[in-house]
Amino acid sequence: SRSIDLAVIPGDGIGQEVVAQGLKVLSAVLPQDVKLETKEYDLGAQRWHRTGDTLPDVELEALKGHDAILLGAIGDPSVPSGVLERGLLLKLRFAFDHFINLRPSKLFPNTATPLAGRPDIDFVVVREGTEGPYTGNGGSLRTGTPAEVATEVSVNTAYGVERVVRDAFERAAARPRKKLTLVHKNNVLVYAGHLWKNTFDRVAAEYPQVSADYLHVDAATIFFVTQPERFDVIVTDNLFGDILTDLAAAVTGGIGLAASGNINPTGAFPSMFEPVHGSAPDIAGQGKADPTATVLSVALLLRHLGHEAEAARVEEAVCADLAERDGAAPRTTDEIGDALAVRVAS
Amino acid sequence: SRSIDLAVIPGDGIGQEVVAQGLKVLSAVLPQDVKLETKEYDLGAQRWHRTGDTLPDVELEALKGHDAILLGAIGDPSVPSGVLERGLLLKLRFAFDHFINLRPSKLFPNTATPLAGRPDIDFVVVREGTEGPYTGNGGSLRTGTPAEVATEVSVNTAYGVERVVRDAFERAAARPRKKLTLVHKNNVLVYAGHLWKNTFDRVAAEYPQVSADYLHVDAATIFFVTQPERFDVIVTDNLFGDILTDLAAAVTGGIGLAASGNINPTGAFPSMFEPVHGSAPDIAGQGKADPTATVLSVALLLRHLGHEAEAARVEEAVCADLAERDGAAPRTTDEIGDALAVRVAS
Ligand SMILES: CC(C)[C@H](C(=O)O)[C@@H](O)C(=O)O
Ligand SMILES: CC(C)[C@H](C(=O)O)[C@@H](O)C(=O)O
Repeated sequence: SRSIDLAVIPGDGIGQEVVAQGLKVLSAVLPQDVKLETKEYDLGAQRWHRTGDTLPDVELEALKGHDAILLGAIGDPSVPSGVLERGLLLKLRFAFDHFINLRPSKLFPNTATPLAGRPDIDFVVVREGTEGPYTGNGGSLRTGTPAEVATEVSVNTAYGVERVVRDAFERAAARPRKKLTLVHKNNVLVYAGHLWKNTFDRVAAEYPQVSADYLHVDAATIFFVTQPERFDVIVTDNLFGDILTDLAAAVTGGIGLAASGNINPTGAFPSMFEPVHGSAPDIAGQGKADPTATVLSVALLLRHLGHEAEAARVEEAVCADLAERDGAAPRTTDEIGDALAVRVAS
Repeated sequence: SRSIDLAVIPGDGIGQEVVAQGLKVLSAVLPQDVKLETKEYDLGAQRWHRTGDTLPDVELEALKGHDAILLGAIGDPSVPSGVLERGLLLKLRFAFDHFINLRPSKLFPNTATPLAGRPDIDFVVVREGTEGPYTGNGGSLRTGTPAEVATEVSVNTAYGVERVVRDAFERAAARPRKKLTLVHKNNVLVYAGHLWKNTFDRVAAEYPQVSADYLHVDAATIFFVTQPERFDVIVTDNLFGDILTDLAAAVTGGIGLAASGNINPTGAFPSMFEPVHGSAPDIAGQGKADPTATVLSVALLLRHLGHEAEAARVEEAVCADLAERDGAAPRTTDEIGDALAVRVAS
């Protein structure tokens, strides 16, 4: 489309700083004739302290009207754990039915991996985004007493599992290596595990060109550090995906580079793009945050909106920028943003 | 005590081979006047194929009478996923109230870690063993249809959380660094998370000498690869503990070295010691399995039964053996067992 109507939620901590760079690069990469409109939403810790709101209905409605959402980071130690996560971030993912939480992992040249031998890492995790242990089902009885019982219910539906599994097979089929790994824990979580595994096996039959395998989540973490090159596409549930993608970010040079898209492929609701890292309040406001994860999330956003050439340009710019970082003096958030904006514009 | 009445469950795959070495080392390290009696239990995949039994009541009763249990590995691809895990391994952990699943992680000299720079790793994970998502609560509705709903319920009680948290504080207080980290995901799993965090904070007040902190499970996986030396004792729930300890094993030289104890500290039931690795059917019967994890589990068993000096001798033998492995030709399961038996005897 020849215009992008973007909602921007800078959020907390370093969110504001990194989002500014994401927008800078986005403006720079878009052709002259694509009009970019942005509207900022004041949501996050400060808003909650001021008004008690996390995400009022009127803003949820307004957000629906945009083509996509760019989000910085949510969360602050001054807010009780869970309030903003559940009341804002997860509320958006669930309300807008972001069932594909897409998290690519690539070891770029010159980036510092903690792994010896710099294995060749280039995989993508397709994390389910609307079910599993993230539904908020559960509760607590006799709270705060020695007789307390607290439960968390992981909810998994054939509907929800099949659509994410299909999406993952499509993505695997479109990649050169055509490999898809289901990660779960079906030897212990037998009910959810059987639903995932049976669905996976059934859909696999429709994709004979994709080589499909299964790993328990505990075993998967081992391969992430001993043999990450074995992975191409991974499909997994909401919680396992959360854990695995932080680990993936760590082995591919850190959370400062990990991008993500909360995608509703049907287009019924706007998709939301955000770096995997959190609000990092310890370094907020100091110009120390690496905006690269946000810029790579902008690439996912561009691709989602059909601007493939621009998405590729952003990714190439990041790649080239990282290749030159080696040994160079550390740059500020703003300087990295500027450098990337210059690269994509040229 | 001057005798050990040990139940032995070799189980599946490499279980038989590694358990044989564990027993060899155990016999060699015990003083002459400590009588070792062992009774083998035929449980696992073969038994299930033959009789359909996983763990009959009569054997569960008989197992109760022993001082401890040494287990090799459970699981075989010929058995539907979950049958042996739930029907045998987890049944034992739950029936014998093994609420402490103790999993030390140490990077021994000369072992191959996938981490660059060989960080100094020496921590222990205290994994809850009788609650969380492992209870088997949950179910599936309209199974096998497009309308299926499958749930898994994580059950957490103040009773269960407090006892494992107290145990972890005791262990942390007894270690030189006196550090304890709670790992959970209390920004999403708010009900269970609050119970864990509140219990942890309350007990922490009784241990001012222990420095206590909290990490989300996703962030914890990052530190496992970027800064594992930051950990001393970790306490966490059953599922997070499962995932983290495989990752810990991977960064400390592999699952072939990772020991564990399923402990009931009250002594009401026998505790059970097992390597963290599985049955590895692909290498079973070839003399390729590394029995070191089982031998280190025997050290935990000795310590649990009050044979501290012998436990330390076994650990020192492993340490010395590993120190000499560097560049040496690979040895068979039996050869490693023999070498360790010789070391502990001398
Ligand atoms: C902040 C938190 C709720 C979130 C999650 O658990 O999904 C984050 O860790 C992520 O991975 O995007
Ligand atoms: C085999 C399986 C049931 C078991 C677990 O999940 O606890 C194993 O992975 C372990 O860590 O001991």
